[in-house]
Amino acid sequence: MNAYSPIGPVVGIVGAGQLARMTQPPAIALGVELRVLAGAPDESAARVIVDTVVGDYRSLDDLRAFAQGCHAITFDHEHVPGELIRALVDDGHAVHPGPGALLHAQDKAVMRERLTAIGAPCPAWARVSDPGEVAAFAAEHGRPVVLKAITGGYDGRGVWVCDSEEAAAEAFAAGSPLLAEAFVPFERELAVLVARSPHGQGVSYPVVETVQRDGICVEVLAPAPGLDPEEAAEAQRVALRIAEELGVTGLLAVEMFQTGQGLVVNELAMRPHNSGHWTIEGSRTSQFEQHLRAVLDLPLGSPAMTAPAVVMANLLGGDDPDLFKRYEHVMAHDPGVKVHFYGKQVRPGRKIGHVTAVGDDLDEVRARARHAAVYLMTGEYT
Amino acid sequence: MNAYSPIGPVVGIVGAGQLARMTQPPAIALGVELRVLAGAPDESAARVIVDTVVGDYRSLDDLRAFAQGCHAITFDHEHVPGELIRALVDDGHAVHPGPGALLHAQDKAVMRERLTAIGAPCPAWARVSDPGEVAAFAAEHGRPVVLKAITGGYDGRGVWVCDSEEAAAEAFAAGSPLLAEAFVPFERELAVLVARSPHGQGVSYPVVETVQRDGICVEVLAPAPGLDPEEAAEAQRVALRIAEELGVTGLLAVEMFQTGQGLVVNELAMRPHNSGHWTIEGSRTSQFEQHLRAVLDLPLGSPAMTAPAVVMANLLGGDDPDLFKRYEHVMAHDPGVKVHFYGKQVRPGRKIGHVTAVGDDLDEVRARARHAAVYLMTGEYT
Repeated sequence: MNAYSPIGPVVGIVGAGQLARMTQPPAIALGVELRVLAGAPDESAARVIVDTVVGDYRSLDDLRAFAQGCHAITFDHEHVPGELIRALVDDGHAVHPGPGALLHAQDKAVMRERLTAIGAPCPAWARVSDPGEVAAFAAEHGRPVVLKAITGGYDGRGVWVCDSEEAAAEAFAAGSPLLAEAFVPFERELAVLVARSPHGQGVSYPVVETVQRDGICVEVLAPAPGLDPEEAAEAQRVALRIAEELGVTGLLAVEMFQTGQGLVVNELAMRPHNSGHWTIEGSRTSQFEQHLRAVLDLPLGSPAMTAPAVVMANLLGGDDPDLFKRYEHVMAHDPGVKVHFYGKQVRPGRKIGHVTAVGDDLDEVRARARHAAVYLMTGEYT
Repeated sequence: MNAYSPIGPVVGIVGAGQLARMTQPPAIALGVELRVLAGAPDESAARVIVDTVVGDYRSLDDLRAFAQGCHAITFDHEHVPGELIRALVDDGHAVHPGPGALLHAQDKAVMRERLTAIGAPCPAWARVSDPGEVAAFAAEHGRPVVLKAITGGYDGRGVWVCDSEEAAAEAFAAGSPLLAEAFVPFERELAVLVARSPHGQGVSYPVVETVQRDGICVEVLAPAPGLDPEEAAEAQRVALRIAEELGVTGLLAVEMFQTGQGLVVNELAMRPHNSGHWTIEGSRTSQFEQHLRAVLDLPLGSPAMTAPAVVMANLLGGDDPDLFKRYEHVMAHDPGVKVHFYGKQVRPGRKIGHVTAVGDDLDEVRARARHAAVYLMTGEYT
């Protein structure tokens, strides 16, 4: 921990991945002192945050020691058990989001129950405990059936799109309690990022389109091109209403399907989100600054865009561990593109960074982002 | 130092003030690992950079230990003695700017000699060693005479505007070797920030107006309002030419006087500069990212502005040590203003942070920046 006294407020982040890492730049600007609870001292955020505590987020003792002296506590991931968060709250700590809200991002069945209760648009869904219940669900709602691990899934893991009873049996073999959802024949995927502060102020970023490949987001287009303004406003209303009804404090990302029959909520995340990385350059207030402001109960910042079109492309690790040698071409080719690396060892398929381009014309901006991303990942021209 | 191996290139910054601190956000994005040589572990940059080495920048042993493993070495300030920098270069380190260039920012007489030799616009000047020589200079060039400490001055210190022989005698009493310059009856002060990389690429930011009070910059207006485009281009040409002729690598800030008879070069700084803080939000590439790219000999980034008008206002310390309590009003009043604190203890007159506003109309943007700065410093409305 720091050997000196903090000058600004201290915000503790449980987890030291790239989300905590990208929170450090706005913390530096605001004079907010970050502390992270890391699993190891070389994790992404631990490399850039002085006040790194190495410990186990599943240990109440470690969490309690970590929380001492923090003005607010928040999360890099959603894996901290609810009863431990509750214990921190009972100790008197300001934890954002609180355990009651966070449960909805940790448990997909609780999330569906609650969203259904407040009238947010959901696909047909049911808890299922064996392939027979999946077959009954399919008989009513058709195939394919989407099976999801109720807890612990991310980036496409823990999701099975099942066309047959055999496929459903395979999903159960993974051993997690499952939720069945009707497959939504969507036109495209959208995401809405909102912030809500403890005193109840809410802010929504523009609705974006997320482009997925193999269950992993590869591109985000801001704002979602061609989206009807009324449908965009409706998406923002839905997201802000969910944040309020669930008592979210901090950021809430609502992933949605756009269908011919309207919007359907797919997933929730209560933290800065991959679909909001574009805000670092593309918005007057980045999602990371916004999250800090929200968890410190400061007035929220302007979500206005800095340019008409912004595209973020994720960088996924390939076979080559040294991507820095490719900076030269990417920067010479496009002096305006912004490269973000997460300080992580390159492993195939791992999210190791992203690039962002901004400009006036979406197609041109998208081509620039894609060129930079593909070249950084593969050394090949697009 | 880091207990783990770096993933990206390591850039060592000698000095741990706010300039090194503000270099950490783009370093985090680029995956560049910063190391700072700090005088104490609680200095501004040391609070946010894990790889902080505490040592003395006047000790060659400390500099040599610090430089081990750095891919490039640069500076937060201009106080490192030239012979020590030369020793690092002789050891094989990439030091930017190099000692030959940096001398022009360390020694005002050398700077004037060189600028005169290359035909850059200077006021009349002479080395002076006693009040009699000042009187002779005044007889030729008129009063007041501006006396400057040849080395070591900053923020108005080491500058005396002398109307009389008595005033000149006082300046000599300070004990530094002095340079005399003819007083320039300027209309306003401008600054041009350029970057130059070791492979010779140069980039210029838009010319800005700097507003000074008591020798300290209080506001920067970007771009300089009402500046004739041809005069702006001339200012950029002069700055780029100085960078090239002096062999600057990294950033060069050229402070100029605008007079009825053209531009006159006032001072040089070879590092990120207060007149460029507006670029953090106001330019596609901040001066801090640009400096990193330059010292790593990467292609330079776009200096394009993100909005038509950008104003930066410095925050100077007052009597109140706790400025965070004033965030609430400033952020609620203007969700688009950006606050930067340097993690420094508040002392009267000390630069402790700055605020930036961007928008379409300079007067409106300036009023917003000023409101935020005055409120943060004093708790009073403007």
